[in-house]
Amino acid sequence: MRRIYLDHNATSPLRPEAREAMLAAMDVVGNPSSVHAEGRAAKGMMERARRDIAEALCAQDAEIIFTSGATEAAALACAGRDLKASDIEHDAVRAWCAPQLQVDPQGGVSIHDPAHSALQRANSETGILQNLPEGLAVSDMTQAFGKVPLDFNASGARMALISAHKLGGPKGVGALVLRRGQDIPVQIKGGGQEMGRRSGTENLIGIAGFAAAARAAKRDLDAGRWEEIKELRKILENALAAETKTTIFIGKDVNRLPNTLCFATQGWKGEAQVIQMDLAGFAISAGSACSSGKVKASSVLRAMGLDEATASCAIRVSLGLETTKNEVLQFAQTWLEKEKKFRARAA
Amino acid sequence: MRRIYLDHNATSPLRPEAREAMLAAMDVVGNPSSVHAEGRAAKGMMERARRDIAEALCAQDAEIIFTSGATEAAALACAGRDLKASDIEHDAVRAWCAPQLQVDPQGGVSIHDPAHSALQRANSETGILQNLPEGLAVSDMTQAFGKVPLDFNASGARMALISAHKLGGPKGVGALVLRRGQDIPVQIKGGGQEMGRRSGTENLIGIAGFAAAARAAKRDLDAGRWEEIKELRKILENALAAETKTTIFIGKDVNRLPNTLCFATQGWKGEAQVIQMDLAGFAISAGSACSSGKVKASSVLRAMGLDEATASCAIRVSLGLETTKNEVLQFAQTWLEKEKKFRARAA
Repeated sequence: MRRIYLDHNATSPLRPEAREAMLAAMDVVGNPSSVHAEGRAAKGMMERARRDIAEALCAQDAEIIFTSGATEAAALACAGRDLKASDIEHDAVRAWCAPQLQVDPQGGVSIHDPAHSALQRANSETGILQNLPEGLAVSDMTQAFGKVPLDFNASGARMALISAHKLGGPKGVGALVLRRGQDIPVQIKGGGQEMGRRSGTENLIGIAGFAAAARAAKRDLDAGRWEEIKELRKILENALAAETKTTIFIGKDVNRLPNTLCFATQGWKGEAQVIQMDLAGFAISAGSACSSGKVKASSVLRAMGLDEATASCAIRVSLGLETTKNEVLQFAQTWLEKEKKFRARAA
Repeated sequence: MRRIYLDHNATSPLRPEAREAMLAAMDVVGNPSSVHAEGRAAKGMMERARRDIAEALCAQDAEIIFTSGATEAAALACAGRDLKASDIEHDAVRAWCAPQLQVDPQGGVSIHDPAHSALQRANSETGILQNLPEGLAVSDMTQAFGKVPLDFNASGARMALISAHKLGGPKGVGALVLRRGQDIPVQIKGGGQEMGRRSGTENLIGIAGFAAAARAAKRDLDAGRWEEIKELRKILENALAAETKTTIFIGKDVNRLPNTLCFATQGWKGEAQVIQMDLAGFAISAGSACSSGKVKASSVLRAMGLDEATASCAIRVSLGLETTKNEVLQFAQTWLEKEKKFRARAA
């Protein structure tokens, strides 16, 4: 059975461009810190990658500090700063912030003190987009990068977190984007790499893949490819809505990522749906990938005012650029059959 | 001109086995934290890698926490613990430790309080090996792993730091090895990966490459391949010693890594030697890769009692498994010609 992967917000398959770039980087022998020709070649590759990523993010004036992913970037940006955040932030941000920002039922977050607040650009579970206030301390742009136009320089944020594997790069590489002049405390010390901000021999192969994926993502975004995916999402949403009575579509009327559909079906646990759909050949998730092993209801949906029972019955379907109309229709058909059976059992 | 790479302690070329494993991992779509089939496949690949690395290190009873490299592992193991260390440790360890341990002229470190001390297994600049006392808090095994037999379970150390790229794996991946029951404070929080010890989506491609490299390294070590390299090192050392009067060979009479040769030539700056040899087609280094961009003399050699002038005239030649007798003889010939010219100019 050919499987249908609809969990791109958890991680997206490696783009061919990233694969090519990684293969090329595998042949680069040197350590970027070495002064000899091999070291300089490695360093050059890394600095080109840094420029490419800055360009894809319109962050040419910013500093890009490569990390092992957005989670490490979040620790670098947020730890020890007593920032305020809401409960819709990713756990990697929430872990360091005071949960003091309120979320409205549409998923919007109001910020009164941007210089001491963290706010994501897009939510991984619902896809809901936020407007970033001027002077915002930290913005998690992980889910948004590559799927909607981003302009770091104009964003109002002083720092941004990004990750390669959400846009078709490899897992385990990301970056902290810093407005020039912004200081951060150093957490990993040693050889003084990344301008002294983050030591350790650099993940050259991963960084090369990240840059190639970011370039390809920007090209696809500029070409309007995500508009096509948004149409597929609409087809899926309409197909499901037409046949279900009690299913709630989260963020239906607000600005969302083009690929994300989050919906809750009263009484039918999200986990059970994920397992049943997995057995039927579809990869989806309940909540974000990191927390999907846990049993508690999505804190994102709880923060938006959904009661615990409803929040625990939500799933997320997240499409990718290679997703086809046929795949979303197959998903809708299978899910609706299972939903009907669930209703019959529950009646 | 074909270049001759003799800087394997800075970083070693990717082994073909690592490349193969990384290519296979590129086709694994899922996030190891996802519950669906794609996620479980990714998780399975990661756990096999964890077992392979534990086996290569005789650390079957220990926990392996994957990190972005030995530098991050050092921060996890050492930060905030007030450990004592000597000045021959890598900067990634020294950054967190009090410089209270003395080094003897042969490069040996005496430890009186192992539970509160860090001691490397092998030095990256000189290759000098240390005996690890029972109950040692932290041992940096980065340079030793793959080049000399290691048995973590029997080593006496409670934690070890290891890195993939020193043994033919990719750069940017490593691990902290923890004796079971040993606790560490969490530094990167979020999704709860690595048993809650180190969050963030895992570098699956890098981890797969690390495991394949560790397996291949163990195979080569068991097959006695490094004994052959030790012979080449002896040939090189003898060739240089026969023709030079003032060159000092560091650690000549003590137990060293089989591939490392560190020597100081009075008056001829290490940096100048690196640049001249680079132009002649040889990649070597002065000090460790991370600090080789800096101008100050090696703190490792200073700690062993060499005066600053002598320490600043040292270079490191580190051989790899693919190094040939012809290559070391070519190196010796070229270096000796340049040394003769330097003497003539200096006279």
